[in-house]
Amino acid sequence: MREVTARDLDMLAVGAAILGTGGGGDPFIGKIMAQQAIEEEGPVELMDPEELEDAALVLPTAMMGAPTVMVEKVPEGMEAVRALRTEEARLGRKADATCPIECGGVNSQIPFVAAARTRLPVVDGDGMGRAFPELQMETFHVYGVAGTPAVVADERGAVVTIETRDNYQLEWIARGVTIRMGGHAMLVDYPMSGAEFKRTAVRGTVSMGIRIGEAVAGASKEGVHPIDAVCAATQATIYGRGIPLFEGKVVDVERRTREGFAVGHAVLQGLGTFQGSRLVVRFQNENLVAEKDGETIASVPDLISLLDSERATAVTTERLRYGQRVTAIGIPTPEIMRSEEALEVWGPPAFGYEDLAFVPLECRFADYYASHGVPSGKEQYLDPRTGT
Amino acid sequence: MREVTARDLDMLAVGAAILGTGGGGDPFIGKIMAQQAIEEEGPVELMDPEELEDAALVLPTAMMGAPTVMVEKVPEGMEAVRALRTEEARLGRKADATCPIECGGVNSQIPFVAAARTRLPVVDGDGMGRAFPELQMETFHVYGVAGTPAVVADERGAVVTIETRDNYQLEWIARGVTIRMGGHAMLVDYPMSGAEFKRTAVRGTVSMGIRIGEAVAGASKEGVHPIDAVCAATQATIYGRGIPLFEGKVVDVERRTREGFAVGHAVLQGLGTFQGSRLVVRFQNENLVAEKDGETIASVPDLISLLDSERATAVTTERLRYGQRVTAIGIPTPEIMRSEEALEVWGPPAFGYEDLAFVPLECRFADYYASHGVPSGKEQYLDPRTGT
Repeated sequence: MREVTARDLDMLAVGAAILGTGGGGDPFIGKIMAQQAIEEEGPVELMDPEELEDAALVLPTAMMGAPTVMVEKVPEGMEAVRALRTEEARLGRKADATCPIECGGVNSQIPFVAAARTRLPVVDGDGMGRAFPELQMETFHVYGVAGTPAVVADERGAVVTIETRDNYQLEWIARGVTIRMGGHAMLVDYPMSGAEFKRTAVRGTVSMGIRIGEAVAGASKEGVHPIDAVCAATQATIYGRGIPLFEGKVVDVERRTREGFAVGHAVLQGLGTFQGSRLVVRFQNENLVAEKDGETIASVPDLISLLDSERATAVTTERLRYGQRVTAIGIPTPEIMRSEEALEVWGPPAFGYEDLAFVPLECRFADYYASHGVPSGKEQYLDPRTGT
Repeated sequence: MREVTARDLDMLAVGAAILGTGGGGDPFIGKIMAQQAIEEEGPVELMDPEELEDAALVLPTAMMGAPTVMVEKVPEGMEAVRALRTEEARLGRKADATCPIECGGVNSQIPFVAAARTRLPVVDGDGMGRAFPELQMETFHVYGVAGTPAVVADERGAVVTIETRDNYQLEWIARGVTIRMGGHAMLVDYPMSGAEFKRTAVRGTVSMGIRIGEAVAGASKEGVHPIDAVCAATQATIYGRGIPLFEGKVVDVERRTREGFAVGHAVLQGLGTFQGSRLVVRFQNENLVAEKDGETIASVPDLISLLDSERATAVTTERLRYGQRVTAIGIPTPEIMRSEEALEVWGPPAFGYEDLAFVPLECRFADYYASHGVPSGKEQYLDPRTGT
């Protein structure tokens, strides 16, 4: 256990924006909500998954919908608590902990709102290990946890409990409810035991998010370039070290809304050692594929983030503007997120790149990883298929 | 109590189509489902509201969405039962009866499906006294019954429980869920006590639907014109006698889909005593307003139905075709549906006729009602506002 403070949430917001890989929503409003909840209720405990009893009940909490709408239609603050209490009533027992379903973007913060208001701990791990756009894109789903009963709650007091036979239909119906609730809502889904969490979660992602934020904040004091500090921050995690992929200037952004997603691409014109080259980053809310001079150099589920080249803060998809100096970095995705089952759900073909096979960053950039140390901690704690 | 047989359901289908006032959905598929359920499970008891204990739990069952879709995506048959069982679990007690929320169209039949499968009686009354397009358009809503917890269930096993603070939001969210479920689904809403049912329901509408169907079927044997038989069939009910408004030929139909509703109008060219006149019937799923030579002669919530001029069977909005010989009839709406509170929810302005005040058929056609007897049984059993 460690205590999470308001300052930790500042750091987490910076780190989670990078883990959001362009999407996931600006953590700002979530952070303000979480900080206010902690100020009023006291600090929240962050719990290592190993501390979780097998029989414990974990109820993940999250925001669903369009984070951009949150800026105009601000949450009331107790939505996630109402969702959690309704889920408890449905299951007939109290929750022992909450956790994020998505450590990237605004959903890194929402569990701290719910946790502060209910005096529950937050377990250090999530179901995406980054940001993804849909509810079935979770390790919980990939490794057999049922997404329902799930509960969606709005700021007007409406609460909708969803039970489906598959997690794709959960996504479909919950999305429809969220739209009817005005574009965003709070959600509890994938109710699970401590044993299921330990078997299926991407571990350590909350503390890693905080550590990435601290790397950004502390780099200049330590005389390290913030981009390098970010890349080093994931070195000793189940992810492995990040890699600078490209440095350049934004010269073109094409972005349109298709079926509720921000779809498009950005073009960077190389600077420094990348002079004369171009990088195209294709996104659907999140950055999916990076192509340097026509050749794919990184793809989902590896994390592709665009950072401000000076400060190493994340530049999200909706904030991309002509003339920005940005550095594209890649962070290897952990083992649990690149199994065959996992790639079926979120490999490049799941986003429409039918012929693009996932090639990990360590293979694409073997030289870099040879000289900077191969990713450490790639071993899984438990086999997510068998739990052993 | 009386036993409802497969033949009664044939009659009810004919009568409910007339009470559907052009909308409500063709009862055919619902009837087949109900007859199959009765064949497999035995007959269903139709219960007079007076037989209902005050403390009894009544769970209305209905189909929600587009009846036209039911023809292509046929219900699985147990959806309403799953909705009812989920509602029981949510409320922590067993239902004592079900009832229709809408006696017009397909929803006259759905409670018999649920009732046969669960061995519950159907109470003889409903919340619309006709067909209406939305869930707040119910006497239950008008007189203060909460629409939620409501449950929507689909044929794939998905079950969604909705709790809202107002019945308009119930309609809004349940409609969204129904669309995501493929266009139609089964619904339990307005869970209520026997006392609430007796105070707020439009009574006797199921047996009246059966009686109207019998009038259509039996008229020719008795040497009565079927149109006259239909008009006489409601004489001794809380509605009062129906009135033939116009006889003519369909010469124009304009119909478009707007926000999920079939909106438009039909034009009849007069025949017989109506030669030289034109009737325009405006509809939104249901027939709302009838204008003879530019003058309004009937409006919602009075019932306006178009019947085949020979057989007196209903011609629904979607089956209107050029050249059909039809007779427009009006049926007075009962007292409980024309209070100030009720007219706010379903008076002409609620459908966009801002300047059209509701003038009852008995006032518009005082001569007819003087010679045919004033509507009888108009008195309400209980004041729906006070229950006394």
